[in-house]
Amino acid sequence: MKKIHGIFPPITTPFINGELSIDKLECNISKWNKTELGGYVVMGSNGESVFLTREEKLKLVEATKKFAPSNKLIIAGTGSDSIKDTISLTNEAAERGADFSLVLTPSFYKSEMKHDSFVKYFTIVADAIKIPVIIYNVPKFTGVDIDVETIAKLSQHSNIVGIKNSSENARQITEFAASTKKDFAVIVGTASMIFSGITSGAVGGIVALANIAPNECVQIQRLIENGKLNEALQLQQRMIPVNKAVTAKYGVAGLKAAMDMLGYFGGEPRAPLSQLADSDKENLKKILASAGLA
Amino acid sequence: MKKIHGIFPPITTPFINGELSIDKLECNISKWNKTELGGYVVMGSNGESVFLTREEKLKLVEATKKFAPSNKLIIAGTGSDSIKDTISLTNEAAERGADFSLVLTPSFYKSEMKHDSFVKYFTIVADAIKIPVIIYNVPKFTGVDIDVETIAKLSQHSNIVGIKNSSENARQITEFAASTKKDFAVIVGTASMIFSGITSGAVGGIVALANIAPNECVQIQRLIENGKLNEALQLQQRMIPVNKAVTAKYGVAGLKAAMDMLGYFGGEPRAPLSQLADSDKENLKKILASAGLA
Amino acid sequence: MKKIHGIFPPITTPFINGELSIDKLECNISKWNKTELGGYVVMGSNGESVFLTREEKLKLVEATKKFAPSNKLIIAGTGSDSIKDTISLTNEAAERGADFSLVLTPSFYKSEMKHDSFVKYFTIVADAIKIPVIIYNVPKFTGVDIDVETIAKLSQHSNIVGIKNSSENARQITEFAASTKKDFAVIVGTASMIFSGITSGAVGGIVALANIAPNECVQIQRLIENGKLNEALQLQQRMIPVNKAVTAKYGVAGLKAAMDMLGYFGGEPRAPLSQLADSDKENLKKILASAGLA
Amino acid sequence: MKKIHGIFPPITTPFINGELSIDKLECNISKWNKTELGGYVVMGSNGESVFLTREEKLKLVEATKKFAPSNKLIIAGTGSDSIKDTISLTNEAAERGADFSLVLTPSFYKSEMKHDSFVKYFTIVADAIKIPVIIYNVPKFTGVDIDVETIAKLSQHSNIVGIKNSSENARQITEFAASTKKDFAVIVGTASMIFSGITSGAVGGIVALANIAPNECVQIQRLIENGKLNEALQLQQRMIPVNKAVTAKYGVAGLKAAMDMLGYFGGEPRAPLSQLADSDKENLKKILASAGLA
Repeated sequence: MKKIHGIFPPITTPFINGELSIDKLECNISKWNKTELGGYVVMGSNGESVFLTREEKLKLVEATKKFAPSNKLIIAGTGSDSIKDTISLTNEAAERGADFSLVLTPSFYKSEMKHDSFVKYFTIVADAIKIPVIIYNVPKFTGVDIDVETIAKLSQHSNIVGIKNSSENARQITEFAASTKKDFAVIVGTASMIFSGITSGAVGGIVALANIAPNECVQIQRLIENGKLNEALQLQQRMIPVNKAVTAKYGVAGLKAAMDMLGYFGGEPRAPLSQLADSDKENLKKILASAGLA
Repeated sequence: MKKIHGIFPPITTPFINGELSIDKLECNISKWNKTELGGYVVMGSNGESVFLTREEKLKLVEATKKFAPSNKLIIAGTGSDSIKDTISLTNEAAERGADFSLVLTPSFYKSEMKHDSFVKYFTIVADAIKIPVIIYNVPKFTGVDIDVETIAKLSQHSNIVGIKNSSENARQITEFAASTKKDFAVIVGTASMIFSGITSGAVGGIVALANIAPNECVQIQRLIENGKLNEALQLQQRMIPVNKAVTAKYGVAGLKAAMDMLGYFGGEPRAPLSQLADSDKENLKKILASAGLA
Repeated sequence: MKKIHGIFPPITTPFINGELSIDKLECNISKWNKTELGGYVVMGSNGESVFLTREEKLKLVEATKKFAPSNKLIIAGTGSDSIKDTISLTNEAAERGADFSLVLTPSFYKSEMKHDSFVKYFTIVADAIKIPVIIYNVPKFTGVDIDVETIAKLSQHSNIVGIKNSSENARQITEFAASTKKDFAVIVGTASMIFSGITSGAVGGIVALANIAPNECVQIQRLIENGKLNEALQLQQRMIPVNKAVTAKYGVAGLKAAMDMLGYFGGEPRAPLSQLADSDKENLKKILASAGLA
Repeated sequence: MKKIHGIFPPITTPFINGELSIDKLECNISKWNKTELGGYVVMGSNGESVFLTREEKLKLVEATKKFAPSNKLIIAGTGSDSIKDTISLTNEAAERGADFSLVLTPSFYKSEMKHDSFVKYFTIVADAIKIPVIIYNVPKFTGVDIDVETIAKLSQHSNIVGIKNSSENARQITEFAASTKKDFAVIVGTASMIFSGITSGAVGGIVALANIAPNECVQIQRLIENGKLNEALQLQQRMIPVNKAVTAKYGVAGLKAAMDMLGYFGGEPRAPLSQLADSDKENLKKILASAGLA
């Protein structure tokens, strides 16, 4: 099995007039291919996955696989509350080239989504799909949070190989790493946590910022692995304000605007999201400049 | 256009061994047909809509239409974050017999889901679909809440005809009714709010409890409309504990267990939900008995 | 024992240059004395109680008692997490003329503040104080919410005579009224809930809006008691936007600004709160005018 | 000025029959004096400060100062929403021997507690008190969270010397350290964050766990400072389960029960809190044993 290690951008989905642009996707990927990114996450939260049809999703996986060199992992976000849909979409994504699936915790019935439900959901899914599962825990979007006991249990399943944890909680990352088997991949889900995550046992990051600052994200991890903690921390500190800007502050629209400013194709997010207001773009430009990115 | 008035159960979806049972659906509907319910909501939150495939959803709409008499409205829950999917599913549901669509507020990007996004989303959807939209606001499941200003604005659209509001906030119901045009239907989303909602300007309820206590739910509204407020309040008070049991306390599994106890087919919820533990069933039985339902 | 019925303003505390002004308090009370308000709440949330010293609090009770006619009840907000402080402050307030104490739920250790802790707290307090307790439940400030089972139990205590419930949840009000003994006073805590609360079993309101619109608040209740529900609902609808402005939107600073606009003394809130910005004052003026108050 | 560095227990307050026991406090402090703890925090959250009267608080400061050697810092929790009370209590605590004050963010009017209010509050307080202020940010108890921009601004004040931040958010710790002046002390507020905090720029911790495992807490920091990250991380991992038990899981009652198990005086918390149930004590004993503490 391919090993998960390093930094992976949850790639944005390029739209022109609201429709998928595979051409623009190719442009972006060809640029990222020149970096040391570990691979690509298609249909993550920053890929506006929830706005895509099933057909669009599969087209995206296929195209990403085609444009990426074979040493870059393809991870496809395929989870939804429906176990049936999750299994069928994952298996089709696998046929189009996905190496791993990133499966969101079910979340609609929030008060019922506890240990037993999570164990049941991920076990049924993992048993039925052809590629390994990375659990995707993102409380700010789902309103549910998965416990360390649940992850410890699920990590025993041979087809569940990791967790992307999108909170900024370092205690949680530390516990996930400490309570799972040796080669279970704990992955941070925000670039603000690369430093704390990697030092606490994580093996990489699936982070929005890697769309626009792939080298910096890779470098934080590498500096830590080379024992240069102070340099790593300084780079981490420099990246936090820009990461906040393209995630919590301005969201996907902000990330896409930053891509446009930095030589990628960003474009507009799909409705009902809107592109950034001009004044916000000005502010974003300053934040990028302060961080040495533009 | 058909007029929305009265009580509508968001009908549970019957599963046998995890698969749709149209036979059991027919049994339930034939019982409900004998009541004064205003119609049926298919694929609501209590219908485990998020666990169903597209094909299953359409099959359900078709069957419900077939089993219901023509004076009962068929309302289909068809909303998701994806505008494309929402439009295509709604239009197919309309072809299978849905009179109205119940469209959940988009919610994945919670911090972006404000006035402008909601207006954009519902306007695009309402413009493109063949049946009228009832907006579905349910903060406890979505983590987003729609403002009165947004509803006031959207109520101007000729194809947006109502809102199902699932909170217990009476101020919000009062404002929705006061700030929308005369025939815009404000609908409560929980049976605990029938009394307060109807007295404050709502025209009906889409309430889980109507699956098991259709007559009582209908009666609360009728007593109010006949000026018998004290009797209505007493019946409302009697229904609150059982409503809490089959919603907040025990969820869909509890509602289905109560159906089994009261002569309907409830059965098990779909995975990852689980059926009620025996001790919880015992407790539920007592609550039903206290409320005079069993 | 005096009976709790009607509308009570949680009176604002007048400051001049940051210090208590008893003169301005007298001006305000002399105006309110001409209305049908049931009495006055001193040291409620709108009285900036948390910013006052113990000496200031007692001075306020004494002055309010002095300026109010004997038929107006004096209710003093005396609760804090400390049982010792709550008891001693309540008993001193009683000596200065308070008829009732309004005791906030303890809330610092939120996760421990469940049924047993609330029962223990209020029982110890109620046993030790010389005037009856009204429980004060205000989740938006405290982050804790008291269950109906807890209120049902506490309502059995002879010295616990009511609850002020500051949420907008009508189901909760209905349950509190249904599950407590006949003369236990359920009181709404926001003017947006007078209509729903009184129709559902509440006996009155302790509401910020009564500082500036005492007659309208009293009138909503009276219309309901006289069977004029439609008129009551219309007046309630007219009051909601202004109530939102002087509570959720602009807070105490907004309430005080509105008082200044309407012939009362409002003045500035105490630090760290700030007075309203001029643009907000303009907007507030329009909201008051729309509601027919200015 | 004394320098803040190292680990400080927010010491529990010993009660016998609900009353302060200065004797038991002396026993505990004499044991802690033999460790490398940097000093003691009196009247922190774990000191049940909210249940104490003013007189009891001052007695505690005085006694702690008396029992501690001169090289241990005395930090007194003196903050409340009232600026007047905060100033007078802090100054009296200073006279009784407090070296620093730990001042909780004001929090009652949550929606108004933003940048301007925090700046105003802490500036007025810091200007008026005789000992330096450490800001105390603890969202889980207060429901408010202080922004990095606010801390950056307040850190410019000569009498504001640090922040105790009780969340588990590593991004926040990193930003606080990066955006404040060189000798501004960023202090973690939970033992689960010692590793992540110290590696990210914090200078120490005020952590409940230090009441029962002072040496282990000190050791995590020391190992990091000596470049032994792996050993530090392993010790951190070992401490997380016990830290969770004596904070989130069992609260102050759990911490006190653990003290009783480990040779300190714990005793019962003050009402309305209750001591741990026997079954919880059994479980706690196992957790302590697993962590090698008992």
